[in-house]
Amino acid sequence: MKRLHYSGLHLIANLHKVDHAIMAMTDLTTCKSVCVDAVRKAGLTIVGECFHDFGDQQGVTGALVLAESHLAIHTWPESGYVTLDVFVCNYKDDNSEKARQLFESLIEAFGPGKVQRSELQRE
Amino acid sequence: MKRLHYSGLHLIANLHKVDHAIMAMTDLTTCKSVCVDAVRKAGLTIVGECFHDFGDQQGVTGALVLAESHLAIHTWPESGYVTLDVFVCNYKDDNSEKARQLFESLIEAFGPGKVQRSELQRE
Repeated sequence: MKRLHYSGLHLIANLHKVDHAIMAMTDLTTCKSVCVDAVRKAGLTIVGECFHDFGDQQGVTGALVLAESHLAIHTWPESGYVTLDVFVCNYKDDNSEKARQLFESLIEAFGPGKVQRSELQRE
Repeated sequence: MKRLHYSGLHLIANLHKVDHAIMAMTDLTTCKSVCVDAVRKAGLTIVGECFHDFGDQQGVTGALVLAESHLAIHTWPESGYVTLDVFVCNYKDDNSEKARQLFESLIEAFGPGKVQRSELQRE
């Protein structure tokens, strides 16, 4: 039997060569919408949100707190750089596939020229 | 000259054997206060917060969005388990020491019997 107790999957990406003109790079509402839509499509559950923008044409930073753990995003439009974190626990169900779907859909939304990915099994 | 552009430090810990009776394990207000106080003492800047509790004597999950990136925390009191993430960018200044101070003070606040730590340089 698969052991779900404690185990969690943390997906981490550093996105390079992202077009600064992509709205989600600088616009808080767009960035949040992209994240919220991606979480819902993946079948995960949002229980809190906090986003902040650093001003006109500056970056956006934010987190969605999920029933299954969290999503965090930070954009640096001036450098075409974005960091993504998707962490899901598998305490009651195995959410790994949902996490991977969310993660890939967000990477696709930003269309980076280069992506560095890593993942951690946390338990 | 030290290259700060892009570089970030992500500190990750899985805390085991945490006493479920510690208030921050189950009480949203206490958990948030512990995090907010630790961030301020470390000299980092909060720009957003989102915390959620799962009900009486259940876990707390939350994130603080920082000018320097984010802090995320999830507690599982029934298992004596906590996950911590502290991510800081070093875009303008090297925030690594502040991040380490924040990280260690939070680990100390939960007094785990066992800690698994890892860190990533992100750029």
